[in-house]
Amino acid sequence: MEKIFTQDYCVRHNETDYSGKLSLPALGDCLLDVAGHHAIDIKFGIDSLQHQGLTWVISGMKFNIYRMPAINSLFKIKTYVSGFSRIATQRDFMAYDDNGKIAEASSEWLVLNMEKRRPVFISDLFPQLGDVCITDSPLPKYKHLRTFDAPVSAQEIRRVAYSDIDINRHLYSMRYLQMALDTFDIEYIANHTISSVDVNFISEVLYGQTVDVVRHSDGDVHGMEMLRDGSAVFRAEFRMG
Amino acid sequence: MEKIFTQDYCVRHNETDYSGKLSLPALGDCLLDVAGHHAIDIKFGIDSLQHQGLTWVISGMKFNIYRMPAINSLFKIKTYVSGFSRIATQRDFMAYDDNGKIAEASSEWLVLNMEKRRPVFISDLFPQLGDVCITDSPLPKYKHLRTFDAPVSAQEIRRVAYSDIDINRHLYSMRYLQMALDTFDIEYIANHTISSVDVNFISEVLYGQTVDVVRHSDGDVHGMEMLRDGSAVFRAEFRMG
Repeated sequence: MEKIFTQDYCVRHNETDYSGKLSLPALGDCLLDVAGHHAIDIKFGIDSLQHQGLTWVISGMKFNIYRMPAINSLFKIKTYVSGFSRIATQRDFMAYDDNGKIAEASSEWLVLNMEKRRPVFISDLFPQLGDVCITDSPLPKYKHLRTFDAPVSAQEIRRVAYSDIDINRHLYSMRYLQMALDTFDIEYIANHTISSVDVNFISEVLYGQTVDVVRHSDGDVHGMEMLRDGSAVFRAEFRMG
Repeated sequence: MEKIFTQDYCVRHNETDYSGKLSLPALGDCLLDVAGHHAIDIKFGIDSLQHQGLTWVISGMKFNIYRMPAINSLFKIKTYVSGFSRIATQRDFMAYDDNGKIAEASSEWLVLNMEKRRPVFISDLFPQLGDVCITDSPLPKYKHLRTFDAPVSAQEIRRVAYSDIDINRHLYSMRYLQMALDTFDIEYIANHTISSVDVNFISEVLYGQTVDVVRHSDGDVHGMEMLRDGSAVFRAEFRMG
């Protein structure tokens, strides 16, 4: 049982975008992968929760990106639990290689009752959470995002299909980010890099539902909102450089 | 330099579908990953080709699937070049774990001139190909698929967005399969497994283009066709059990 858990990665072809660099959703896939392995290591894995009709869900993330590694590059991600309350835990990540930091991210997690689709008290489930938590210097938490004032710069309707949903039978968290990025014109992305992102996962989206992905832009700051029947289910703010 | 190249994998959360088992496109991602590493090992890597304005493209695949591993399972993939002609090479794969075979797949590859988008003679580029090829017992090659006679069972228009394209600036091969699978109702997939698939990649699809994904079904045999301006750019036949 390790308080700080580290895993090795190698950037795959399918994890890069057309620039040949690791994409943001693929970086997120790796973060969620190492989080899952660490949770199993400290006995808070999703397997044991599912036997009790419970599951981990992510409620928000904040990314700071310094540079994205190229295809076939080796890198590492270290992660640890950096804070907790009665209903939420914070988990921080650092991705790095021999040349230094690649990205940092913080994430907030809830435990959901899968039948009621409502959060439960984590402190009751895992009273020993304090023993594995490293509270020294947690990374800044994501910003709570409200309706964006900037004008609408792109809008697209998306249907949630088979390949979009995960074992929790809802839209996979990184697919929200992918759908947001898909509103960009490729020439814009080719000439910009993502420097930081705040992400709010507001509500589950289920198989077969349609969402309206709306981008609001103020220069290189982009507010992304995903609406279902007019209500926001996701918001993110991308700052591009 | 290894004639048979083997690599270890661990099924990640994002590589499974809602059943918690490795998805077909994610298995394909792993096959392409190990192929890329082996190609570098035998000095036929995409890196060296790109310096000459060339790239590898896949023209067809055949999958035989025995069972898909669950999330966090360890498995291995071995691969080797199993045949070649003047313009194409065949590469075979076997995915397996301690319990035996998971899947077998054959694949056919061309080298494309990236400017002209036309194949070149591989035998001129790599005269030493015979030295690394294991021609003993190549796996059966994919079937060439023609227009499907079975009635249309589903149809959907898809736009090729930022997240769909790869370093070759065209629709990533496994995205064709993903778009095909997305025509299925989730309840059908929940109650069936894919036993084998023949895949024909007929034409590149570029960023911003829209395609019409059409499924033709005869019981549990599904012919998938992707059309652009009425012409087929992709066909696949899925046999489900």
